[in-house]
Amino acid sequence: MNVLVLGADGYQGWPLVMHLSEKGHSVVGVDNLARRAWVKEVGAWSAIPIQSFLKRGHLFDGDVSLHISDISENMYLGEMLEDVDAIIHLAEQPSAPYAMKSLNHATYTMKNNVNGTLNILWALREFNPDVHLIRAGTMGIYGTPNVDIPEGKFDLDYHDRRDRLFFPNSPGSYYHLSKVHTYQQSAYATKTWDLKTSSFEQGVIYGVNTEETRRDPSLATRFDFDGVFGTLINRFCAQVMAGKPLSVFGTGEQKRGFATLENTLQAIDLMLKNPPPTGEFKTYNQFDKVYSIMELAEAVQAAAQSVDLDCTIKKIPNPRMEAESHYYNPSTQNLRDIGFNPKGTLTEEIIDMFEALIPMKQRILAKDASIAAKVKWK
Amino acid sequence: MNVLVLGADGYQGWPLVMHLSEKGHSVVGVDNLARRAWVKEVGAWSAIPIQSFLKRGHLFDGDVSLHISDISENMYLGEMLEDVDAIIHLAEQPSAPYAMKSLNHATYTMKNNVNGTLNILWALREFNPDVHLIRAGTMGIYGTPNVDIPEGKFDLDYHDRRDRLFFPNSPGSYYHLSKVHTYQQSAYATKTWDLKTSSFEQGVIYGVNTEETRRDPSLATRFDFDGVFGTLINRFCAQVMAGKPLSVFGTGEQKRGFATLENTLQAIDLMLKNPPPTGEFKTYNQFDKVYSIMELAEAVQAAAQSVDLDCTIKKIPNPRMEAESHYYNPSTQNLRDIGFNPKGTLTEEIIDMFEALIPMKQRILAKDASIAAKVKWK
Repeated sequence: MNVLVLGADGYQGWPLVMHLSEKGHSVVGVDNLARRAWVKEVGAWSAIPIQSFLKRGHLFDGDVSLHISDISENMYLGEMLEDVDAIIHLAEQPSAPYAMKSLNHATYTMKNNVNGTLNILWALREFNPDVHLIRAGTMGIYGTPNVDIPEGKFDLDYHDRRDRLFFPNSPGSYYHLSKVHTYQQSAYATKTWDLKTSSFEQGVIYGVNTEETRRDPSLATRFDFDGVFGTLINRFCAQVMAGKPLSVFGTGEQKRGFATLENTLQAIDLMLKNPPPTGEFKTYNQFDKVYSIMELAEAVQAAAQSVDLDCTIKKIPNPRMEAESHYYNPSTQNLRDIGFNPKGTLTEEIIDMFEALIPMKQRILAKDASIAAKVKWK
Repeated sequence: MNVLVLGADGYQGWPLVMHLSEKGHSVVGVDNLARRAWVKEVGAWSAIPIQSFLKRGHLFDGDVSLHISDISENMYLGEMLEDVDAIIHLAEQPSAPYAMKSLNHATYTMKNNVNGTLNILWALREFNPDVHLIRAGTMGIYGTPNVDIPEGKFDLDYHDRRDRLFFPNSPGSYYHLSKVHTYQQSAYATKTWDLKTSSFEQGVIYGVNTEETRRDPSLATRFDFDGVFGTLINRFCAQVMAGKPLSVFGTGEQKRGFATLENTLQAIDLMLKNPPPTGEFKTYNQFDKVYSIMELAEAVQAAAQSVDLDCTIKKIPNPRMEAESHYYNPSTQNLRDIGFNPKGTLTEEIIDMFEALIPMKQRILAKDASIAAKVKWK
């Protein structure tokens, strides 16, 4: 297939480009390199050194073509879609703390995520509605409701009547709001213009390697560990390397779904092979397993000790506004129905991360001040 | 009270400014004059001549100060809020067909509505969270579900568990999507930053006069009748004046809530007197009564005949994607609980409109081509 990957320079995007190429697809990757600028802005860098975006295309031997462009600003997708079978959209600003920093950061996040999505949807409408749109969402659109979380629409019973509606959203930051917006916009366009869309609502992604990144250090993907762009388990592992206690927000009872980078590629691959029918907006909740934050801290601690690294756990005041003790039961049936079978264990993945991070200890220490959670919700 | 009205030059905004001043409030009105430009862009004008925004301030004798500024672009609200008791936010782009015209119009609508709202919310957070925010929403955020429509949160029962969540949204255009977004953003900010917000989800507003506009022709508010900015009953009345049949979309069975301009002022006045407690986001569904489109066409026809005007009804293919035969039962209990008592009858209001429009027949004929519904959803 001809696949267009938007956000091809990102943590997930670059491994995905290589993975799709290995699977025999012809891949065009687009990125505006914004992630590199955002991480620099917050005083951090990738713990693992990465090549420049354009160099990546030369270093990897596959049918891959990479282009610098900004789909939220000036990129005309139009006729480009004529030969494309699928678009994988990973080009949204993905950090809640970044969006909560200031009015300008909230407004920028809305602009980047909303305008980029509108650009894609209208181009599909006008040029090629047959393209399969696969978009990255977040489990954060649901919050942590006291009822089960379905995938997409559900039967709502209310005052003795029934309708099939989208599940209510409870976003917990301006980033999460922007993802609710682009979810709704994509669902609306799909129904109105007979598009076909797979939306995968991601849990927290962690891990350092995929089959392709392991081949050569020059093919590594970025590994953020700062308090703004570092995801939870990744940040814990970096805290171990920096000799700092694992910072658990509040009681640590908060539960979320977590997925490895490698299993995320498996999920995207399966969605690519299973496009929904025309006019259907299919939602997949995408994660391997639900853990509480404290369970994860304890798993990181145990794995650290097994490779002779010191590790303590410290509860800190929660900078976010979120429930700490709550019910959490999201369905992942839709992915399982198309064959998803998560591989590896949490401990194996954490040990793999330590092996990759031990040689990077000085790079982590050089920016260790950035690990702290400085952005407060209130 | 000191009241800041955003969108003070609009169809509802200008009568509201005068009304609040008459009630003894000190009013600052802000507008970027965009509505005048949008209506000109679609080849139309107000059927009733209106004064320039700044001249309005001199013509009306009251404690009113008017300013040209754009809250979505460059206006710094900040310290301005120190002396304000309430903000009434009417500054969103209000037309579904306008937002559906093109990618640029959809993107512009998002920018105008989302950035303006973010600007207000962050200014409240940083400068004066005690200000009562009263924002205009739309009943269109709910669509036409096959169950009752509550106001704000409701008890969701699902898989033998219960939570209190916001009712699911089913927006029917990029305009309606933008209103879902700003509703969610306002609700989120209110909860997170301890603001106090009244959000009124408006039905279709119609009518030409209020107590203050009747005093002098120079105090008239705009009356749009084109296919993009004219609201339903207003457009029907203009079609009568132009000697054209009333254009009913599809079967005309679609039901919506409708409110007169005068009753809308009554509702806003009551909300102003009843601020919710700190941290509460209160939703009011705001309309006088539910009618089907065909019922309204027949009411306009009967009223036209009573003042000796010819009027026929013509069904045209529906340019919108919407259910035509559907259940519709939204609650308006919250407004009634604070004393809302809609005045006047549909027929009285329509006859009042004909009296105002008969002298404007030549102005309507001059732009009658703009009445047609040219923007198609698909």
